[in-house]
Amino acid sequence: MRDWTSMKMWGARGAVLVLAGIATLAMPARAQDLGGRGAREAARSYREANEAAILREYTALLSLPNVASDSVNIRRNAAALMEMLRRRGATTQLLEVAGGPPSVYGELAVPGATRTIVLYAHYDGQPVDPKQWTGGGPFTPVLRDKALYQGGRDIAFPADGQRVDGEARVYARSASDDKGSIVAMLTALDALKSRGAAPSLNIKFFFEGEEEARSGHLKSILEKYKALLKGDAWLFCDGPVHQSGAQQVVFGLRGVTGLELTVFGPNRPLHSGHYGNWAPNPGMLLTHLVASLRNDDGEILIPNFYNDVRPISAAERRAIAGLPAVDSSLRHSLGLARTEGNNALLAERIMRPALNLRGIRVGGVQELGSNTISTEAYASIDFRLVPNQTPERVRELVEHHLRTKGWHIVSDTPSLGDRLKYPRIVRLQWESGYPAQRARMDDAFARALVSSISDGAEKAPLLVPTLGGSGPSYLFTEVMGVPVVTLPIANYDNNQHAANENLRVQNLWNAIELYAGLMSRLGKEWAPVVP
Amino acid sequence: MRDWTSMKMWGARGAVLVLAGIATLAMPARAQDLGGRGAREAARSYREANEAAILREYTALLSLPNVASDSVNIRRNAAALMEMLRRRGATTQLLEVAGGPPSVYGELAVPGATRTIVLYAHYDGQPVDPKQWTGGGPFTPVLRDKALYQGGRDIAFPADGQRVDGEARVYARSASDDKGSIVAMLTALDALKSRGAAPSLNIKFFFEGEEEARSGHLKSILEKYKALLKGDAWLFCDGPVHQSGAQQVVFGLRGVTGLELTVFGPNRPLHSGHYGNWAPNPGMLLTHLVASLRNDDGEILIPNFYNDVRPISAAERRAIAGLPAVDSSLRHSLGLARTEGNNALLAERIMRPALNLRGIRVGGVQELGSNTISTEAYASIDFRLVPNQTPERVRELVEHHLRTKGWHIVSDTPSLGDRLKYPRIVRLQWESGYPAQRARMDDAFARALVSSISDGAEKAPLLVPTLGGSGPSYLFTEVMGVPVVTLPIANYDNNQHAANENLRVQNLWNAIELYAGLMSRLGKEWAPVVP
Repeated sequence: MRDWTSMKMWGARGAVLVLAGIATLAMPARAQDLGGRGAREAARSYREANEAAILREYTALLSLPNVASDSVNIRRNAAALMEMLRRRGATTQLLEVAGGPPSVYGELAVPGATRTIVLYAHYDGQPVDPKQWTGGGPFTPVLRDKALYQGGRDIAFPADGQRVDGEARVYARSASDDKGSIVAMLTALDALKSRGAAPSLNIKFFFEGEEEARSGHLKSILEKYKALLKGDAWLFCDGPVHQSGAQQVVFGLRGVTGLELTVFGPNRPLHSGHYGNWAPNPGMLLTHLVASLRNDDGEILIPNFYNDVRPISAAERRAIAGLPAVDSSLRHSLGLARTEGNNALLAERIMRPALNLRGIRVGGVQELGSNTISTEAYASIDFRLVPNQTPERVRELVEHHLRTKGWHIVSDTPSLGDRLKYPRIVRLQWESGYPAQRARMDDAFARALVSSISDGAEKAPLLVPTLGGSGPSYLFTEVMGVPVVTLPIANYDNNQHAANENLRVQNLWNAIELYAGLMSRLGKEWAPVVP
Repeated sequence: MRDWTSMKMWGARGAVLVLAGIATLAMPARAQDLGGRGAREAARSYREANEAAILREYTALLSLPNVASDSVNIRRNAAALMEMLRRRGATTQLLEVAGGPPSVYGELAVPGATRTIVLYAHYDGQPVDPKQWTGGGPFTPVLRDKALYQGGRDIAFPADGQRVDGEARVYARSASDDKGSIVAMLTALDALKSRGAAPSLNIKFFFEGEEEARSGHLKSILEKYKALLKGDAWLFCDGPVHQSGAQQVVFGLRGVTGLELTVFGPNRPLHSGHYGNWAPNPGMLLTHLVASLRNDDGEILIPNFYNDVRPISAAERRAIAGLPAVDSSLRHSLGLARTEGNNALLAERIMRPALNLRGIRVGGVQELGSNTISTEAYASIDFRLVPNQTPERVRELVEHHLRTKGWHIVSDTPSLGDRLKYPRIVRLQWESGYPAQRARMDDAFARALVSSISDGAEKAPLLVPTLGGSGPSYLFTEVMGVPVVTLPIANYDNNQHAANENLRVQNLWNAIELYAGLMSRLGKEWAPVVP
């Protein structure tokens, strides 16, 4: 891996031509065609010989703090990714618009290929609260022999020549979401190269830098670089595999929007004895506000909220019925006596919208509890959306609901005049958000994709109408006008978005084989483009 | 003040005899009788000449961290108080039982006096969150020219001979609650001494060290030292003056009990997209639990909660009707468009019990918000009790209510077996708490007390059936069998219990005069004890 240069690709028989700033891959007359099984075997043997080096590249990337708002460190991540892409012979470029983190672009053109796939991942991570992490913190990767909740203990990263058990896990922010995907796809290229084989189609890489911060600049980037980013389809390399451990192909993602709420009480903190049951307690006001939004069984109580929801189609119902039963074991593993929606199946529930309480902060609890009426109370909510909901319509419905409940809505700290005029004041801060997306499960790309990753695999992948999670995939459909399908690789119990995020090592190994098979076969399974 | 020793009291004409370890004050044949007005004038002129020194003693005491659980620093406070008492010629003693902070005891016996008053204050303070304090933190006293919310700015403490404007405020934990009272009563002794006058009755000092931590050891201390602490009545020197600024005599305090609640969700954090509206969100469960306890107008919804409440008597109604109207100006100053109980008067509201939400913590909000379903959610509640409620009965009612709502109650972290068995699990951690207390407003002590502090004062004090706040005063009635009345001195807007607690300097000055008048007159107004 280390001896690669951008001028020397695909072994001794290939050479990179740099023309007009774009790297074009000059392939040998007869590049190796490994087939699906061969590509997967190549990936496996390459990986088995290089586990230490693969984990070194991965942990070096994980060590770079990557919260989207941390612009200095985000650019360190982008620079590292550019270098990683260049080591695989890709031409690279930062895609920038004012005010947001750059996206990282890479391109590998394969001579003779007529199809182009764009591989999407994001390199930024969710905000972190280091106090909640076990061990070294979110940006000090730790290898453990199994998951923390299984009693996992720290072990040393391997030295060259040493192997790592697949049940081990790497703990760090973005280990699973999405730096693992990025390292896996680049390692798949290394593995193909080690056999003198080339991808079967052109590959473009698009690594976003603010997915976890709501992708506010993504649309502008796609529009600005639309020509550069042209491809026949996008693959979204994000999210977890099925809870059963099976590979899945996911044709949709839920949309998302977020809301920060602040409720105001007295303008200075008050002794709860002298003023309790006279001065309004903002925490109680907020509690009743939040309770009015949904019941404790997951049903959203905001009037008309479900009106826009596209009904589940017969085809989607069939796909869901074909998925393995996971609810019972999942409930047991999570210690849940019941689940929401009167114990309805997870796969059915995520076809519906969700209102999730991310957090509430008011006053103090436990050792910080004091007999005080607070001045402000905060809640944070995310909505998961399904077709045909939009963030704009959700905002309208929420605000209408709150107004009918007597709330005066502001967007800033209220003045004394406002406080004296309105008995219930709430500040709403909306995140931009985006709608859901679901691709067709039966077009040429979908069929080629499923064939290419099935070829040589132990099992056919599961076909899933939608994931519960969100990504800005609707934008690609909207701006680029091509299909978008998600191919996730992480273990489902990866603590994604929370403290102690992790990736099971076997999932990283599997992903390398998955991408190697995909790259080797997709261009061949897919009907060529006729110019 | 600085030249006092325990061997030289009440000026040149007095001397302290130490007999059997108890200091007895040998009074001159004709000790000065200043009268109420004279005692108050003595206090004023003494204070005006010594403002810098008084504030030095006060801030030295405030600089000692005094959270009850911080046993090292609590003992530093106790040692400082012993020394302050000894400087006034009092014999002192730490009153100890195993496992709690000591109470500080001091005694000044006045020859010929037949009555004994016990002055109670507490020297511990509420827990602190230093991040929320403006300026130097809770234990670095700051003098400001007015209140922070009035735009107050830091000013220097005075040098000897300099004066301080009465509108200035001292900011520190316990500035008002209760270290200000302690300094005021000791300074009143200094002022009487400066005129060769003596108190008109024996004085015992009892300074508690865990009032803000629920007084768990107080009863044991009172029982163990019952003989030592014998007196004819106790004065509780705690709490704020009336919101109008008028001195008040308070015949009751609300009781209090506290509750920490923990609700359990999945046993590891989950991505809100992949599991949202399937995995129960402990924050939503907690929200609905808390909302079921009281509405947002202050009414407690726990069945039968009000059954034990003693109805407000006609005498109490008359007393309340005689209090100045403060609600309107108080609402304006606090920025409140409405108050609870459909805008009922504060004085009426505090005759009823209260349920106050001290805090909620679950997940994160604002910059710490992440799209996660949390594993646990915390709430903290305090109840304010009135006669004839008891903490034990409140606990029964709350637990019964929660069980009827489907909650399984535990006192520790639930096992996996429990999690899989019970859909709604809440951990309840009850604080010990104590009941309310209300003394008679028409007995001999009450009449003598009101006379003694009215004599020479600009205005007669307000007579208040109860304060909204709590103190363990019921215990004195229960264990000692004598009346307990509260004589508060702090400004009402003192941020008691919260960050930026403060005492308005004029309130400290007024308190010195109040205590000087009281000490000088109470023994004379009160019918002597006939042996």
